[in-house]
Amino acid sequence: MQSMTRVEHALLAALSRVETGCPPRLAAAVRHAVFPGGARIRPQLCLAVGMACGDDDPALADGAAAAIELLHCASLVHDDLPCFDNAPTRRGQPSVHCAFGERLAVLAGDALIVLAFETLARAAQRSPQRLAPLLLTVTRGVGMPQGIVVGQALECEPRVALGDYQRAKTGALFAAATAAGAEAAGAEPAPWRIFGEWLGEAYQVADDIRDVVADPQLLGKPIGRDLALGRPSSAIELGLEGAIQSFDRLVAAAVASIPPCRGGAQLRALVRREAERLVPLALSEDVVRVAA
Amino acid sequence: MQSMTRVEHALLAALSRVETGCPPRLAAAVRHAVFPGGARIRPQLCLAVGMACGDDDPALADGAAAAIELLHCASLVHDDLPCFDNAPTRRGQPSVHCAFGERLAVLAGDALIVLAFETLARAAQRSPQRLAPLLLTVTRGVGMPQGIVVGQALECEPRVALGDYQRAKTGALFAAATAAGAEAAGAEPAPWRIFGEWLGEAYQVADDIRDVVADPQLLGKPIGRDLALGRPSSAIELGLEGAIQSFDRLVAAAVASIPPCRGGAQLRALVRREAERLVPLALSEDVVRVAA
Repeated sequence: MQSMTRVEHALLAALSRVETGCPPRLAAAVRHAVFPGGARIRPQLCLAVGMACGDDDPALADGAAAAIELLHCASLVHDDLPCFDNAPTRRGQPSVHCAFGERLAVLAGDALIVLAFETLARAAQRSPQRLAPLLLTVTRGVGMPQGIVVGQALECEPRVALGDYQRAKTGALFAAATAAGAEAAGAEPAPWRIFGEWLGEAYQVADDIRDVVADPQLLGKPIGRDLALGRPSSAIELGLEGAIQSFDRLVAAAVASIPPCRGGAQLRALVRREAERLVPLALSEDVVRVAA
Repeated sequence: MQSMTRVEHALLAALSRVETGCPPRLAAAVRHAVFPGGARIRPQLCLAVGMACGDDDPALADGAAAAIELLHCASLVHDDLPCFDNAPTRRGQPSVHCAFGERLAVLAGDALIVLAFETLARAAQRSPQRLAPLLLTVTRGVGMPQGIVVGQALECEPRVALGDYQRAKTGALFAAATAAGAEAAGAEPAPWRIFGEWLGEAYQVADDIRDVVADPQLLGKPIGRDLALGRPSSAIELGLEGAIQSFDRLVAAAVASIPPCRGGAQLRALVRREAERLVPLALSEDVVRVAA
């Protein structure tokens, strides 16, 4: 099965299990937060690493991938709240608080966090000894002291280094996705974490670039938010050309860091394809031409 | 060690582990949400059941108790938000959003949920085979379709049965606390879950009674909120005398449901002591006298 299909199946299974008997508006808000999805880049990355490491317990890899994506969705729902970004749209539809109200948006985020860990626990039936380390990998990606919740919290501190912010806001969950993919397949997670960290940094820079130049229709969310909200951004700090160069360097470092494994060639191709999707070469050439 | 001391130690250890390297304002908001605590009734109940069942892995029981309390604290922080109860005080101090702002209150709640599962995973080193069922017990108490997040979500539905509301809003986490206490000690959780459900219902009725008659200074939070916020309440639905009778019946049912175990007598005494603390006999007699 293709990894995108595996991700969607795992997410659907996780949601279906808890919807029966749930208050209808909460169930609808949670579903709205998860479907339709975006690029599902984190869970696909988790599965790609799992496959590169042999994928000997696919149910556990699917559970880990779903958990990572549910946590990502939870963070989007809470990030979009009026007290944070006050975002009207997300993934091309109204944000959860706009569609269901602020209270259900807070609760849907909470429910998604809980569901992520439940999904992981259910997936560990065949390999129970892998559950505790996998859980700690996932909590490290989202919680204190350096997970995505901290990335968001850094927006509430008076002064923030751009690198710290990007590492926590995006890098931490990418690192959790790659490390969890390895652990789900019984492999050593440490070298895979580094690969995830490079990718996460690259992705955050791409996001900053897209916030400046993308078409909001295609992006599915408003653009120009970083500047409007005074948030740290590499496109603002380095300029557009500098940010694109930084992106290219980070992608190269990510590709170079892939540990020796069966599926190395496939994985390198996947990273290059994804990099081209995020920051098309055509855009880089345009920017360089304008700057020249 | 007394169970209250064990609870405070386990909570302190959980927080200390993640505070280093965490943005100071988020760390302070999380600590504010957890300390000073209230009666710590759920984690103490978890430990009391664990001890009644032999307490053969005290570190795991401590981890389970801390996880339950961290999730309870998270729910209080989010319940107090302006979009819900907009509560200015909690446990005798400013609520988290009043002290740290709404954004850090949302994030502190999220961080506490994650920390709860991290704490559980770290505590399962000696008995890894107990982790998955314990995790599922805890997620059932807080998540969809019937955990405390659902109790809060029922406030967003047009019509709610009082029993469903109380079972989800309070009963679910009490049931998780007793079942988790048993599981942490390697005992069968099902009969202990029933004990927790009775206690949870009793506690919710006591809370409704206290919302009507208590001294806000002693309670540490404002009173009269249920009526003001139009929330389901047994003191409003049954009248004060009816609610007190219902409380007494629920406590008796809880005591009667305690499964055969070594520590049964101690546990029964604990429940009766806690019941007297929550709804003093003197109050019941006053109400009956006024009604007569």
